[in-house]
Amino acid sequence: MAIGNTAESIGSKDADPATESGVERLIRTVGPDMERVNALIYAMAGSNVDLIPEIANHLVSSGGKRLRPMLTLASAHLFDATGDAHVKLAAAVEFMHTATLLHDDVVDDSAVRRGKPAARVIWGNQASVLVGDFLLGQAFKTMVEAGSLECLRILSTASAVIAEGEVLQLSGAKSLAKGEDHYMAVIEAKTAALFSAATEVGPVITGNSGAAQDAMRRYGLYLGLAFQLIDDVLDYGGNRDLLGKETGDDFREGKATLPVIYAYQRSDDADKAFWKRCIEDGEIRDEDLDAAIEKVRTTGAIDDTIAVARGFGKKATDALSDVPPSPLRDTLGDVVEFAIARAF
Amino acid sequence: MAIGNTAESIGSKDADPATESGVERLIRTVGPDMERVNALIYAMAGSNVDLIPEIANHLVSSGGKRLRPMLTLASAHLFDATGDAHVKLAAAVEFMHTATLLHDDVVDDSAVRRGKPAARVIWGNQASVLVGDFLLGQAFKTMVEAGSLECLRILSTASAVIAEGEVLQLSGAKSLAKGEDHYMAVIEAKTAALFSAATEVGPVITGNSGAAQDAMRRYGLYLGLAFQLIDDVLDYGGNRDLLGKETGDDFREGKATLPVIYAYQRSDDADKAFWKRCIEDGEIRDEDLDAAIEKVRTTGAIDDTIAVARGFGKKATDALSDVPPSPLRDTLGDVVEFAIARAF
Repeated sequence: MAIGNTAESIGSKDADPATESGVERLIRTVGPDMERVNALIYAMAGSNVDLIPEIANHLVSSGGKRLRPMLTLASAHLFDATGDAHVKLAAAVEFMHTATLLHDDVVDDSAVRRGKPAARVIWGNQASVLVGDFLLGQAFKTMVEAGSLECLRILSTASAVIAEGEVLQLSGAKSLAKGEDHYMAVIEAKTAALFSAATEVGPVITGNSGAAQDAMRRYGLYLGLAFQLIDDVLDYGGNRDLLGKETGDDFREGKATLPVIYAYQRSDDADKAFWKRCIEDGEIRDEDLDAAIEKVRTTGAIDDTIAVARGFGKKATDALSDVPPSPLRDTLGDVVEFAIARAF
Repeated sequence: MAIGNTAESIGSKDADPATESGVERLIRTVGPDMERVNALIYAMAGSNVDLIPEIANHLVSSGGKRLRPMLTLASAHLFDATGDAHVKLAAAVEFMHTATLLHDDVVDDSAVRRGKPAARVIWGNQASVLVGDFLLGQAFKTMVEAGSLECLRILSTASAVIAEGEVLQLSGAKSLAKGEDHYMAVIEAKTAALFSAATEVGPVITGNSGAAQDAMRRYGLYLGLAFQLIDDVLDYGGNRDLLGKETGDDFREGKATLPVIYAYQRSDDADKAFWKRCIEDGEIRDEDLDAAIEKVRTTGAIDDTIAVARGFGKKATDALSDVPPSPLRDTLGDVVEFAIARAF
């Protein structure tokens, strides 16, 4: 299933609840607020300097899932949010994410982002770095408008942690020896920290702290970990029929993700040499991606990575038991199921 | 005169007030608080990811002037600051600046920063982008700890405006036709906005608003404009005996600063061709920098740029008349004189 930009573009308002996925129901539930978030996002991308809205809108309109701001909205609505502070926070969360994407593409020398040419390919690395900085500045401005110092603490901490995770990833790039602990530290910082902050601000902006805040922090953290693990599984096709165009980015960039780490650990000498040549030396031939996909499957690396994701998914769902029951809480539970079911 | 890192390294505690420059007196006055700022800066640069303190300390220990955090401290002390909130804001201001330098060097392909190899030359563009992002995140975290939403508004707005100014500069790079208005818009955003925010937060963090806040906002704004104009004059040697190693960076990078814009506007066809070849086409020969310095002097471009800086310096000094008189206020007036006197 494709996940699109707005409630209008995806979630049918009269969808059948019985067959609807967690994310479809999430989109339908937060749809009206997401329209406010989207309007704010376009306003935040505005500038008299033409290059800024040009680049920002290239990303903003490129069909990203907007999962993070939807999670912020849902988390706030769990605690009966009113007003517009949670809308501002949701837009800020999406801009933090967008700024990260712009810089990531520069760091990774990426050619493609969301099926379109990466901004850096069209406008260059210089503009991508600077417009990323602008979006981050706008994100902080918008958070400040939400008026909660505790939310600012949560989100500014996430901002530093995300960058720290990217540097950690860079320092272990193209290395198979760093192993599982390093990988987990990277994805916790670069991905799960923002999911966690995105959901933690929900109770806070509605005046809740203590157990509710801690529960939503953990929910986002574990969902983010599961989400990234499944993303990394999908880069090798998951357990689905292969869709060539969606696979192999991590492989080509020499990223030692968990499927690769597991497969490498279970390899004989010949296969270890294969992984070293591809991941560490970056010498990749035409047939290597297919061979890599074969190896991560036959060694059980894919299944075991999915099992790790399931473990975190369980923790995310458990965290929800510390917030009051509601249909929206059930939806957030189903979002966890959905994140993992993408692998199949 | 060189400006150094701390009060200890420069300002003699028993300096003769009659011969001391404004900046020397500023350093002496805020010295004790700057030691707290410096300790905080080193703490903020800490991380378990080794590459981060390595790169951050390369810049932090490279003898930058730390003029901006000193201005924040002085501005807060004008209004009898106590506690440590102003120290946190000063450190955050310096980190915002440091993050900008890391990204600027990537954008400008710079080889040298403060007389040392630029971080990007040693650790690469990727690490420079990501560590810049980390420093910005740490800056925001530290601002949040200061606990003032109004200061957060001021500084986050500056953060977005600075990036906007950098993009504006990029969009007009290597163009002589953009002219004086474009140049002024660039330096107001990329330089003066941070000076302005750095001084505006002084009254705010001490509980003052209204006229005091507006006065210190204007003081920093106009000081920042004067400061950048004189920096751009100094890149062509100012009116001093030439110091080859300090000149020509802007010229080599094709930056159409005000001295160049004025000289170009006053040129005959042959000289116009010279400037176009050097600035717009980037075809620079060994003897061209000397020729450029000759031209910006003989056309009066240097003198007239200094005159513009003097005009802003006057406005900065005038702004101080709206805050209560004190020896420290006089020192801030002398800082303006010092900023301009650097040209001679």
